[in-house]
Amino acid sequence: MRRPLSLSLGELQREFPAAEVPATLQCAGNRRDELIRVRPVPGETPWGAGAISHARWRGAPLAAVLGAAGVEEGAAHVAFAGLDRVEKRGEIFPFGGSVPLEKALAADGSVYRTGGVLLAWEMNGEPLPPEHGFPLRVVVPGYIGARSVKWLGSIRVQEAPSDNHYQARAYKLFPPQVGPEDVDWSRGLMLGELSLTSTIGAPGEGEELPAGRATVRGYAMAGGGRTVERVEVTVDGGRSWTVAEHDPAPPGVWTLWQAELDLPPGDHELACRAWDSAANTQPERVEPLWNFKGYMNNAWHRVTLRSR
Amino acid sequence: MRRPLSLSLGELQREFPAAEVPATLQCAGNRRDELIRVRPVPGETPWGAGAISHARWRGAPLAAVLGAAGVEEGAAHVAFAGLDRVEKRGEIFPFGGSVPLEKALAADGSVYRTGGVLLAWEMNGEPLPPEHGFPLRVVVPGYIGARSVKWLGSIRVQEAPSDNHYQARAYKLFPPQVGPEDVDWSRGLMLGELSLTSTIGAPGEGEELPAGRATVRGYAMAGGGRTVERVEVTVDGGRSWTVAEHDPAPPGVWTLWQAELDLPPGDHELACRAWDSAANTQPERVEPLWNFKGYMNNAWHRVTLRSR
Repeated sequence: MRRPLSLSLGELQREFPAAEVPATLQCAGNRRDELIRVRPVPGETPWGAGAISHARWRGAPLAAVLGAAGVEEGAAHVAFAGLDRVEKRGEIFPFGGSVPLEKALAADGSVYRTGGVLLAWEMNGEPLPPEHGFPLRVVVPGYIGARSVKWLGSIRVQEAPSDNHYQARAYKLFPPQVGPEDVDWSRGLMLGELSLTSTIGAPGEGEELPAGRATVRGYAMAGGGRTVERVEVTVDGGRSWTVAEHDPAPPGVWTLWQAELDLPPGDHELACRAWDSAANTQPERVEPLWNFKGYMNNAWHRVTLRSR
Repeated sequence: MRRPLSLSLGELQREFPAAEVPATLQCAGNRRDELIRVRPVPGETPWGAGAISHARWRGAPLAAVLGAAGVEEGAAHVAFAGLDRVEKRGEIFPFGGSVPLEKALAADGSVYRTGGVLLAWEMNGEPLPPEHGFPLRVVVPGYIGARSVKWLGSIRVQEAPSDNHYQARAYKLFPPQVGPEDVDWSRGLMLGELSLTSTIGAPGEGEELPAGRATVRGYAMAGGGRTVERVEVTVDGGRSWTVAEHDPAPPGVWTLWQAELDLPPGDHELACRAWDSAANTQPERVEPLWNFKGYMNNAWHRVTLRSR
């Protein structure tokens, strides 16, 4: 086995070409509140549609650091260990996770490429705030937030995905009828790339508006290396759709969209859906997506309005 | 401008390292019949779930040929022109299409990599049959079948997508309320990577089975560079799902799945859905996917059975 490469923060900053990368991080539990309205999800944070945020990150491309450390034959995953530990029901869980080596290398192994993984020490032009992982964190664009490990302590290139609790057990997806009492953790779908989502941010649920022209706004994001190609809004349950305006965004970055509707007086249910670069769109209902950990709800996002 | 590289079939076969690639080609109009049951789709073939097939293809990696030809600064798309012409309502349309340069190069530009594009002269160990593009065709794993141009005549590396009819107008996706009479072709979603799909192949629609244990089989495929991570079958409208067995398949290749159900006497509606490596699943209903060209139907696939 190779001798481990050990780097101080200063060495990391001096010895590697820094890259500045826009990336939108999103929790796998974003929009869990809608799942909870179907059935309870005990023990998990009831996130609304706000467990997502965008920043500019500056740091060293992971590909460059792995190039310096050397990658051995047979390696397929890159595991990150954070310096924090989560206490949950009296048990202590060190935090960590992994990404496939292919993602970590993002093509050529030396300079940063779109979608590549960053070892970041700056967020929006400032040193990382403590709660965002000071002094160093991982940023994995297009992946569930849990893989962007904060307070990074060590990196290990290995054959298998991380056996850390947050990779090997938590952050797995199960069918709706499986619960904590009968779960077989080995059969869960191990989360990685984010699924396609879009939400209506304004107007808010239950708002009253003057009848007539209404502007609807929200965000949309495609997971992995994909882009959002279209966002649509319906007021008739999906029979017709108004195509929203949105600016193109690279993979791993959300797009903010806006649509103009003409709403007659009365009660309306608005819903939005996005389409990604592979012509996938979002599921219609929340119910068939329910899972006992409350992950990856990307059903059409709905808002009820009254126009008067 | 560079001098064009001209190659005979023999030169292509002798001068480049051949690769053999498994790839499942699928028409963007696969499963159009379900859309037609919602509303007519005039002028298009009413494909069932069989507009898909799998083969081993042998040929030269497009990346290697582009390396020999040279790629100029600013290039972003690779356009293929076929030698055939389609006659439709008295008009003649030469057939062609393009893929992004990034897809064509598939990482390192010389040898074949999974998901890379092939210039193929063999199918399942034999020279291409005439109807499959003899003597040479393009194979673009994970993309709509139309991009795998048959009877290949020429390749052009260029800034913009192909302006061929089958890229610039046909094979675009529109919302359900748009029809041929009011379509603005420039606003369509230009298809490329395939969306996630799965279907039930057996038992067939309307079959009668003995009550009790039943084996259900079908195929599933994730588009682009993704893989199928799970296939599920429901007999209760999506409240619970039986996880099917399936063999892992690389991107661009279908997987054949099988599930064992226990069906009491009575009428049943089975539906299947797949999940891809970004935890995307399929839309539930066909209706909100309807589009006047009849493309990319990937709703849950349903079969009605009687158990007695």
